[in-house]
Amino acid sequence: MPSLPALLREHIRTIPDWPKPGVQFRDLTPLYLDAGAFRRVVDALVQRHAGSDIDRVAGIDARGFILGAVLAHALGAGFIPIRKQGKLPAPTIGEAYALEYGQGVLEVHTDAITPGQRLLLVDDLIATGGTLSAARRLIERLGGQLVEAVAIADLPDLGGSAQLRDSGLPIHTLIQFEGH
Amino acid sequence: MPSLPALLREHIRTIPDWPKPGVQFRDLTPLYLDAGAFRRVVDALVQRHAGSDIDRVAGIDARGFILGAVLAHALGAGFIPIRKQGKLPAPTIGEAYALEYGQGVLEVHTDAITPGQRLLLVDDLIATGGTLSAARRLIERLGGQLVEAVAIADLPDLGGSAQLRDSGLPIHTLIQFEGH
Repeated sequence: MPSLPALLREHIRTIPDWPKPGVQFRDLTPLYLDAGAFRRVVDALVQRHAGSDIDRVAGIDARGFILGAVLAHALGAGFIPIRKQGKLPAPTIGEAYALEYGQGVLEVHTDAITPGQRLLLVDDLIATGGTLSAARRLIERLGGQLVEAVAIADLPDLGGSAQLRDSGLPIHTLIQFEGH
Repeated sequence: MPSLPALLREHIRTIPDWPKPGVQFRDLTPLYLDAGAFRRVVDALVQRHAGSDIDRVAGIDARGFILGAVLAHALGAGFIPIRKQGKLPAPTIGEAYALEYGQGVLEVHTDAITPGQRLLLVDDLIATGGTLSAARRLIERLGGQLVEAVAIADLPDLGGSAQLRDSGLPIHTLIQFEGH
C-alpha cells in the first residue's frame, strides 16, 4: 500500500498557468473522484482527532465543504459552513480577507457556535492563509475553541502556513507542494 | 425517536423575506449543525441506495457539496463537484440555467465521468429545478447513468420537482415545504 503522501501525489494534479500565467494550480478533484484514496485521507484525520472531543467542524466555502462535511460526519460532529458574504440567511458576523485586488468577506451564523465548543477548521489547501485566518477570527469571536486547522495540501512557499503557526494556530496538512 | 420528516421540520428553519420580500427561505444549516439529525438523513439515503451500485455522487456548488460528499463517502463512491463557471481548472463542459435576470452556467470536468458509470446527483433543495436540470444534462453528455437526483427538501409549489419527474428523471426528497 503506498504511503499517504505518495497516494496524494498520485491523485492531485498540477494545472500549469491557471487561473493565470505563472501559477501552478493544485487540483484535488482527482482525489475526490477516487473513493479509496479519499477514504485514506479521512481515516488519517479521524485517527488523529478521535480523542480530541471535537464538537463541530467548520468548512470554508466552497471546496472546504467537501472534506469538512465528511470529517464532521466521520467524527460525529456538527458541520458549520463558513460562507462568502451574502450567502447565509440568518444573523451573521463577518471578517475580511485580502484578495489580489480588494478584499473578500467570510461570514458565519452567530448561532453556529456555543462558547467553549471545540472546533476543527477545514479547507482543501493552504496558500497565503488569508481565508483561514479570517475564519479563525470568526470562530474565536463566537467563543469557539479552535483545536486545529486542517487542510490536505500546503503551499509552504506562499508563507501562509508559517504565518498561521507563528500566530499560535495549530496547523495540520498531509502534503506539501513546492512552488506557487 | 421522531420520524425523519418530523426531525427535519425541527432542524430546518424558515427565514421570512430572504433573500428578498415574499420569499420564505428554508435554511438547512441547523440540520448540518446537529450531528445526530444529519446522520439520520445520511443513513436513510445510504439504506435507499446500498444495493444500487453507485460509482459516483455528483454534488452541486456549493450547498450540494455538504450532503453530496458525505453520501459519496458513506456509499464508498467517488465525489464529483459540479461547479459554477470558471472554478474548475481542467477541461470542462458547461450547461446554462436560468437566473431571475440572465443565466448562470454549471461546469463539470470532462474526465469526471466514464461512460456507463452509475451516478447520484445531490443538492440540498429543489426549487425551480433549473440547476438540477443543467447538472443532469452535464452528466448525460458525459455518458453517465443517472440513477436518481436526491435532495433533502422540495418546494413543490415552485414546480421544479414535478417538471424533472415529467422529463423522466427519478427524484427523491425527504421533506416537502409548501409555499415559496
